[in-house]
Amino acid sequence: MRPRSVAIVGVSSKPATAGRTVLTNLKLNNYAGDIHVIGRAEGDIDGYPVTQSIDDLPEGVDLAVFALPAAAVKDAMEACARRGVRAVTVFSSGFAEVGNRAAQDELVGIARDGGIAMLGPNCLGYTNLVDGMPIGFANARVVARTPVGGKNPAVAMVSQSGGLMAYASLTLAARGLPMSYTVATGNEADIGLADFIDFFTLDAATTVIALYLEEVRKPQEFLAAARRARAAGKSVVAIHPGRGEKGRAAVQSHTGALAGDYASMQVHMSRAGVTLVDTLEELVDVAEILARYPTPPVAGPGMLTFSGGFCAIAHDFLEGEGLEMPPLTEEVRAALEPKLPSYIPPRNPLDLGTQAIWQPELTGIGTGALMDDPNLGSVIVAINSGTARSQNTYGPYFVGALKGRDKPAILAFPAPELDAEFAQAVLDNGLILSRSIERSMRAIARVTHYGRALERNARSASYAPFENLPALGKGAQPEWFGKQLLAAIGIRIPEGALARTVEDAVATAERVGYPVAIKAQAGALAHKTEAGGVMLGIRDADGLRAAWQTLHDNVARAAPGLALDGVLVERMAEKGLELMIGAKRDPKWGPVVLVGLGGIWVEALGDVRLMPADLAVDDIVAELGKLRSAKLLGGVRGAPPVDVRAVAETAALVGRLMLTVPQIEEIDLNPVFVHPDGQGLTAVDALVIASEA
Amino acid sequence: MRPRSVAIVGVSSKPATAGRTVLTNLKLNNYAGDIHVIGRAEGDIDGYPVTQSIDDLPEGVDLAVFALPAAAVKDAMEACARRGVRAVTVFSSGFAEVGNRAAQDELVGIARDGGIAMLGPNCLGYTNLVDGMPIGFANARVVARTPVGGKNPAVAMVSQSGGLMAYASLTLAARGLPMSYTVATGNEADIGLADFIDFFTLDAATTVIALYLEEVRKPQEFLAAARRARAAGKSVVAIHPGRGEKGRAAVQSHTGALAGDYASMQVHMSRAGVTLVDTLEELVDVAEILARYPTPPVAGPGMLTFSGGFCAIAHDFLEGEGLEMPPLTEEVRAALEPKLPSYIPPRNPLDLGTQAIWQPELTGIGTGALMDDPNLGSVIVAINSGTARSQNTYGPYFVGALKGRDKPAILAFPAPELDAEFAQAVLDNGLILSRSIERSMRAIARVTHYGRALERNARSASYAPFENLPALGKGAQPEWFGKQLLAAIGIRIPEGALARTVEDAVATAERVGYPVAIKAQAGALAHKTEAGGVMLGIRDADGLRAAWQTLHDNVARAAPGLALDGVLVERMAEKGLELMIGAKRDPKWGPVVLVGLGGIWVEALGDVRLMPADLAVDDIVAELGKLRSAKLLGGVRGAPPVDVRAVAETAALVGRLMLTVPQIEEIDLNPVFVHPDGQGLTAVDALVIASEA
Repeated sequence: MRPRSVAIVGVSSKPATAGRTVLTNLKLNNYAGDIHVIGRAEGDIDGYPVTQSIDDLPEGVDLAVFALPAAAVKDAMEACARRGVRAVTVFSSGFAEVGNRAAQDELVGIARDGGIAMLGPNCLGYTNLVDGMPIGFANARVVARTPVGGKNPAVAMVSQSGGLMAYASLTLAARGLPMSYTVATGNEADIGLADFIDFFTLDAATTVIALYLEEVRKPQEFLAAARRARAAGKSVVAIHPGRGEKGRAAVQSHTGALAGDYASMQVHMSRAGVTLVDTLEELVDVAEILARYPTPPVAGPGMLTFSGGFCAIAHDFLEGEGLEMPPLTEEVRAALEPKLPSYIPPRNPLDLGTQAIWQPELTGIGTGALMDDPNLGSVIVAINSGTARSQNTYGPYFVGALKGRDKPAILAFPAPELDAEFAQAVLDNGLILSRSIERSMRAIARVTHYGRALERNARSASYAPFENLPALGKGAQPEWFGKQLLAAIGIRIPEGALARTVEDAVATAERVGYPVAIKAQAGALAHKTEAGGVMLGIRDADGLRAAWQTLHDNVARAAPGLALDGVLVERMAEKGLELMIGAKRDPKWGPVVLVGLGGIWVEALGDVRLMPADLAVDDIVAELGKLRSAKLLGGVRGAPPVDVRAVAETAALVGRLMLTVPQIEEIDLNPVFVHPDGQGLTAVDALVIASEA
Repeated sequence: MRPRSVAIVGVSSKPATAGRTVLTNLKLNNYAGDIHVIGRAEGDIDGYPVTQSIDDLPEGVDLAVFALPAAAVKDAMEACARRGVRAVTVFSSGFAEVGNRAAQDELVGIARDGGIAMLGPNCLGYTNLVDGMPIGFANARVVARTPVGGKNPAVAMVSQSGGLMAYASLTLAARGLPMSYTVATGNEADIGLADFIDFFTLDAATTVIALYLEEVRKPQEFLAAARRARAAGKSVVAIHPGRGEKGRAAVQSHTGALAGDYASMQVHMSRAGVTLVDTLEELVDVAEILARYPTPPVAGPGMLTFSGGFCAIAHDFLEGEGLEMPPLTEEVRAALEPKLPSYIPPRNPLDLGTQAIWQPELTGIGTGALMDDPNLGSVIVAINSGTARSQNTYGPYFVGALKGRDKPAILAFPAPELDAEFAQAVLDNGLILSRSIERSMRAIARVTHYGRALERNARSASYAPFENLPALGKGAQPEWFGKQLLAAIGIRIPEGALARTVEDAVATAERVGYPVAIKAQAGALAHKTEAGGVMLGIRDADGLRAAWQTLHDNVARAAPGLALDGVLVERMAEKGLELMIGAKRDPKWGPVVLVGLGGIWVEALGDVRLMPADLAVDDIVAELGKLRSAKLLGGVRGAPPVDVRAVAETAALVGRLMLTVPQIEEIDLNPVFVHPDGQGLTAVDALVIASEA
């Protein structure tokens, strides 16, 4: 990122070509290192002697930039390896993005063997704004240098789309918040996302790392790097289209990237301390807040306004964002009350109405009170009326109350006119000025949810492996085995046993007590109900013998030649609310646990909560409360509340199993019967799928 | 709104008092009519002779403005009535908003008897910007006059909160879109919302009517006025906080208004052609679009961008807003293809990438193609990169392609720098320039949904009353009667009859065939299942006799002394998907029909669709598709698709019943068993509640 010498490979004498643009950029920005120009032209270009071959370079050039056709890249890379070049940026396209994976792999091989870090191919390059150095071919420009240091927070951005970077840079710069680096990573054949996150984690200038992602090629490396960044106190903010079907299709056609399982990705990103946003505006807004206030809030915001009507709109809006405006603490309320006219209640949101016209100092007093209140995680000053003149009046009070504080605060002034003096004071004091109250509320909501996610992450469970687990086979396990596994980790299953003969079955039934269920067991029999392999509510031995015969006849008809492991004989479980508890291991992102309504409702409603596998039990309880069907848990139409804690504990056990037994790919307890509060739950079906490997 | 003479009642010699501010405002704005100053001061105020009493006024003053304490208002109103004053604006507070309803009613009585139109009390007044006349006490200012006429569309606003009006006025003015009138209606004791909507409907200057509502006091008058406005081609855009609980509470504490049933209100507003928005930004954005493009689009938008990454974000975003980007028509695609470089696919969204740098004329060609495509209802040019210089380059192409067209279009340029020449060209051509792509997409989504709602409204059914309906009693009707009513309007119910004796019951069961259900019947027995008054699956005559006895014993125990109408004996219905179809008459807004999952699921999930009672059957089918549980209708886990059309037809019949039988307050068919496609449905329970009056 800070090369002491640069070789530009493929410089033509024609102006406005890629190599020439790189050269022009280095000159325009007074690059102080050595520049080597490699090309076919004779003599000089722009005052630099043209070297005809990479092999004529001195040893150990820091960076070579390839502005070459794809066909010439391999030879050039080999030459760079010979000359000990340390890093290469490859603009050239014509590799994996057009299906030419072999050529790309070959290139990676040469680079790695030669100890070269390669950026690209098919990339737009990068800009180091700290040292004022653009390595790119798009256009020639002078880079405003970003001062380094904690008092000047900066944002680094990695983008898999070039066009969006300009928007983020321009917008943040206009808010007095510079970028430290921008990188367009292209095909990421060698170095990629995780490497840059690691670099920015160590970089003193960078406070926030912003990402535009279309495909995370190495999710585990990415997540590990994101965790390191967060541990270093840096925030990672990302946007990744592909929530919806069309967005996913658009990403695919754009770069050939395959969007992963979006929901799994969300869970894992949040768990790694990445905050995902949906739009570019949110990206810059959230990046700005986290750059200026590196510790995201956990409590809801305080708001100060001049309009009662706005308070109602704000309540609706924040409720839609899953956020509340907390009440003031009694201390702050009591301290504020005597300072306000009697008809202005000291509360949050604090509505000063038109009183600030007569008593402008109230704006500072009110804002200060909100900033001081420990119930409030952030403060939004939302002034949707007023002119530049009024900003000039109130501005100093607001700035005075907000400056030098750690609590995130936004001055939201949507009026079209902006007082220059006020705007300058905001900039000078490192404060945030927004032209949209809605955007401010949305950004504060995002940042607060981020703070809550970080708290939740800090509470995550750390699990030891279970002892004495039965040995897993490959692929789908029969129900009886799945239930053995559940029993071994402490999940209640119906009393019963696997029977090989009808007399076995009768003996088991006598032991556990009628009524019983019998279920045909074989790993290969995935749809046993559909095959007639399940008979419920058998009341006595005669019934059992008859059912035994029917079951075997049914299975023989549905799956001729199938050898059953036996028949599971179980006492019918007490009924309860039918939920499903499951887990799956996303091949890219890793395991997630899910809980939702059981039976067909999972498919019909998609009402499930996805969670990290190490989520703490209390946090799982909180997640269950977010099910759309959460009311059922509390009991509707006279039903008693069910044992929610048992659901959470079972989900935690399932998570622990996923984390500590890597062979398991999927667990599906559907349904579990959840009994009234305090009475636990029973898993009445269990499907465990192990990897085939 | 355009008084030829004004009397200001309660002018003091002190400056900056309410009456003085009104006077100053009239002078500042060169009011051309007669001004009468009524006060206690001797001599002149501001050059106007002070009249001591209203009784000294000439006959027939157009408008009197009361800047009086509440206690003096009644006498002043009586005096105005004596002098034939035609309208009075009452700033004074201290009436219904503080619980003093009697004094307010008295005031209304005096005004009406005197033929006076009263605005207020407790109001901030109004501003007529067409004639440059502010009638308000908040501050003194010069009003920019709004030119009248179709080429200069203007927005009128009525607000129940003063503070928000300033935001809307300033924001729209900055976009070259003036207000025609702003009105703060206060308590609306006499003239109110509907009167102003009617006035603006006839006003030549006004194209869009924007409303901030906290309480619609006379919903039916409001809806009728809104329908007249829409019929006159004017759009009504409204914001009404209170979606969430907190928002509702905030509204209540703000003005003492009681938010109505929000969901019912939404249905009725949409049916009357009002478009509801959630935030102030949406209010101004939507108002701007509808002011410049009075006919809202029905088809989804076309988009032009320079960034492929943005296309993916836009797809996600619009999907979240329930909107799609339609494909180009084959004609437009074919015409566009030869004009684009081969690597730019002619599609929607149209991503020009960086090609516009080399071929700026492509911006005009692309935008023109989107504007010409009949598949697209609107066009958003979304340029999230670029500088003022680039706007200067592309601007003329964009303006050229958009100007003079009826299809709504937005130029969305979020970059912080704005080229002045470009901005001026946008203003001069009456185009829309937005600084936020997200806001543009959201606003286009709102406006398109509005266009679709208007289409839906145009398709609404017009119903004649049913003939030969059984006569309704008062209050809750017993099930057997409810089912008679359903049968009379053509909804299938289980075969059966009301039995008074056990022999009756047996005879009915023999006729309809076993198995049967029996259900105790009495209007006063609301919870017959809980009372043990329902027995299902009775297989023969002996079973029926036993069940008959048990049922009567149960009911006698649960409700001693209750006289049953009899017992409903019905053949057990074929099972089917359990839905609920219902309707309720909101006392303020009128009837709505609702459909959702049946049984406990209505309560547990709240997954219902609310619809106007006159919604066309095809549109009801579309609404059913928006249920979160819509997948169930198509059949999950091998179940056959159910008869969705029968559900829609039944809902339409229920709606017709609500519209034509005003005594019915509520209908609840829960559950109906919906059979496989083509086989209809059976209503197995029916509750009809008639009014007690």
